[in-house]
Amino acid sequence: MTDPVSTPAAPGKPGLAVSPLAVAFPHMGVIDGVEISTARAGFYKHVREDVVLMRFAPGTACAGVFTQHAVGSAPVDWCKAALAATGGEGRALIINAGCANAFTGAAGAEAVQHVADAVSAELGCRSEAVMTASTGVIGVVLPYGKILNVLSDLTVSLDPDKWDQAARAIMTTDTFPKGAVASALIDGVPVKISGICKGSGMIAPDMATMLAFVATDANLTPGVLQALLNAGVRDTFNAVTVDGDTSTNDTLLAFATGKSAAPQISDPADPRLADFAGALNGVLLDLAQQLIRDGEGATKFVKVTVTGAASDASARKIARTICESPLVKTAIAGQDANWGRIVMAVGRAGEPVAKDKLAIRFGPLTAAAHGAVAAGYDEAAMSAYMKGAELDISVDVGVGEGAASLWTCDLTHGYISINGDYRS
Amino acid sequence: MTDPVSTPAAPGKPGLAVSPLAVAFPHMGVIDGVEISTARAGFYKHVREDVVLMRFAPGTACAGVFTQHAVGSAPVDWCKAALAATGGEGRALIINAGCANAFTGAAGAEAVQHVADAVSAELGCRSEAVMTASTGVIGVVLPYGKILNVLSDLTVSLDPDKWDQAARAIMTTDTFPKGAVASALIDGVPVKISGICKGSGMIAPDMATMLAFVATDANLTPGVLQALLNAGVRDTFNAVTVDGDTSTNDTLLAFATGKSAAPQISDPADPRLADFAGALNGVLLDLAQQLIRDGEGATKFVKVTVTGAASDASARKIARTICESPLVKTAIAGQDANWGRIVMAVGRAGEPVAKDKLAIRFGPLTAAAHGAVAAGYDEAAMSAYMKGAELDISVDVGVGEGAASLWTCDLTHGYISINGDYRS
Repeated sequence: MTDPVSTPAAPGKPGLAVSPLAVAFPHMGVIDGVEISTARAGFYKHVREDVVLMRFAPGTACAGVFTQHAVGSAPVDWCKAALAATGGEGRALIINAGCANAFTGAAGAEAVQHVADAVSAELGCRSEAVMTASTGVIGVVLPYGKILNVLSDLTVSLDPDKWDQAARAIMTTDTFPKGAVASALIDGVPVKISGICKGSGMIAPDMATMLAFVATDANLTPGVLQALLNAGVRDTFNAVTVDGDTSTNDTLLAFATGKSAAPQISDPADPRLADFAGALNGVLLDLAQQLIRDGEGATKFVKVTVTGAASDASARKIARTICESPLVKTAIAGQDANWGRIVMAVGRAGEPVAKDKLAIRFGPLTAAAHGAVAAGYDEAAMSAYMKGAELDISVDVGVGEGAASLWTCDLTHGYISINGDYRS
Repeated sequence: MTDPVSTPAAPGKPGLAVSPLAVAFPHMGVIDGVEISTARAGFYKHVREDVVLMRFAPGTACAGVFTQHAVGSAPVDWCKAALAATGGEGRALIINAGCANAFTGAAGAEAVQHVADAVSAELGCRSEAVMTASTGVIGVVLPYGKILNVLSDLTVSLDPDKWDQAARAIMTTDTFPKGAVASALIDGVPVKISGICKGSGMIAPDMATMLAFVATDANLTPGVLQALLNAGVRDTFNAVTVDGDTSTNDTLLAFATGKSAAPQISDPADPRLADFAGALNGVLLDLAQQLIRDGEGATKFVKVTVTGAASDASARKIARTICESPLVKTAIAGQDANWGRIVMAVGRAGEPVAKDKLAIRFGPLTAAAHGAVAAGYDEAAMSAYMKGAELDISVDVGVGEGAASLWTCDLTHGYISINGDYRS
């Protein structure tokens, strides 16, 4: 087990201090049917591993959720088309950091094809069963030769117990590696889930992307796996925001090897999936929250809950507006229970709000109620609460039953330095 | 004439340095039918004027555009209701800085009523002909006694030539006073337009609001004045953004005294309005751009133009997404022609984009064309251009004829300090 907090030499950006909100990397163990290797392909000038190969057992189901960005990257385009062609077959995954291969036109697409073909030949599967993911500089065509050069090394060093190395090799401006594990029962039989991800801003300095990869030994059809992912992302990866900016390359891929003794599930509505779905969502939420904990310059981990909205969707929109308001985020950085800025953000979300019922709480402390400052508002208690690193902000807008929680971080000088100072 | 750049003792926030993008306050002259006075009501601990009274001649038409914020303030509610009641009569305007009187429920509304009634009695007009505007702390009921205490002083010191003092008295975190003047012909007869405004963030630290006030000696019916304002704000006040946050109190009020010799215009479609409408829009744009030049922490004044969009509305949405992207804004602060972040922002706007036709220019320099980095991309020339304080960013998305320009500023350590450091 590795403690990232005591590992200053993160492979991401040299010199970045580990986030004060970092959590320890878990003991990942192995997933039967998954082998992993890492190498240095040379996308970075400094010495670090920057490429990951995963090999999956024959019959592995694959599903993915990808960026909604209008200018998707070549690897995202590849994965979508390949999954459609195979109906969800996943035999390999090749990931690189240092080059996003986004906004690269036909040349970028050809580069991905070269990589997938080479992995296909190396591992003996069809090209469309090879998933690819890239993160790094936008606008540069993937120099795929770098990956081909290390492919045989990657193949010979495949090993089930390398989740930790993989999590490190995909880091860009991340200051700690991110992993999560869980177990669940399917029809009474234990199965395992392991996942890793990377990302710190929704898009880092000149580097793109949230990437997340989850594997399980459960036996699920591709359709079931896709349905679980689609349902799972809404309140996990789609419920976190650092700066509202999204990437051309955002990718979440899941692989189910079927190597456990659990029976195959082929219907997304099968009640035997309940425990597994809950565990999977737990892994997704854990990974998503680690992105926030590594938010660029973050010093506060903030949960924003909106209740009393016209619908859950309305609650999500209001919560997102709060989470992405620069004035709210800077107030949190300043340890200020500035409920006036929350009111401002709620009001500009464009959703139904009962102005005279609006209530705002910071942790257990009520700041505003019935549309005005709360009776007994205690400035000293508020200030003490805001000094904490983990904050809960709750808003009730008083019109209905809709509710949602989102997670974000504060906006600090660190964010400006990471994103604005690197050339000046 | 006063040069704000050489006036360090701005009445706003003590110790704030004047924006490097500040422009000189113009010679405002007078508008026949408008008298102005200022006073210190005591909303601030330090010595500064913080209240403005304007008196307008009988028959003055009034129109207003107000915040779309769901939690509007008591003065905004008052103005909307009063204008509806009178059909657009404007005899007085009373403005205070230091207390926004927003999110204050029935007590806030009563406070406004007291102020309007007192001004009404003092000046001899009906209460509903008294417009009110407030800016400052949210959640505190206006201590209206402070205004009543100085009302007779304000009345005796009314003078047509006090636009400068008024512009200073309404400042909060503004670092320079903001004014604009223009003249125009209506049916060959000259008329004048004068305007002032305040605002630096869309909402300042614990203080709310963009406030703008424009007066003319043209003879316009309230309906015409309202129609001109409605048409004018789209490409002026609604085309600037500092941080995407909006205020509970945003107010633009216009007054037409009819004291010039120009004929009355009662039809918004009257072709004799063309020159006036252009001049009015020029004043609104000048004032709006000054808000950006005083954006909290701003060091760059940035015009973002989007062309080739599916519609003008689509172009505006894409331009707004670029203007409000923290990653774009920090890149500009870092003097980095980071076109990858522009691509990112364009793609997440959710509007139609022809990925393979996307083109991006910084001033005269092409960064990307045909969906990839431009042939002959010149890093040195780009870097030199980005060192300027006034930047043009142009994006063509290659799908249609829609176009729009928006203005914004960069996101710097100064923004974080102003909004996040004041308590920590």
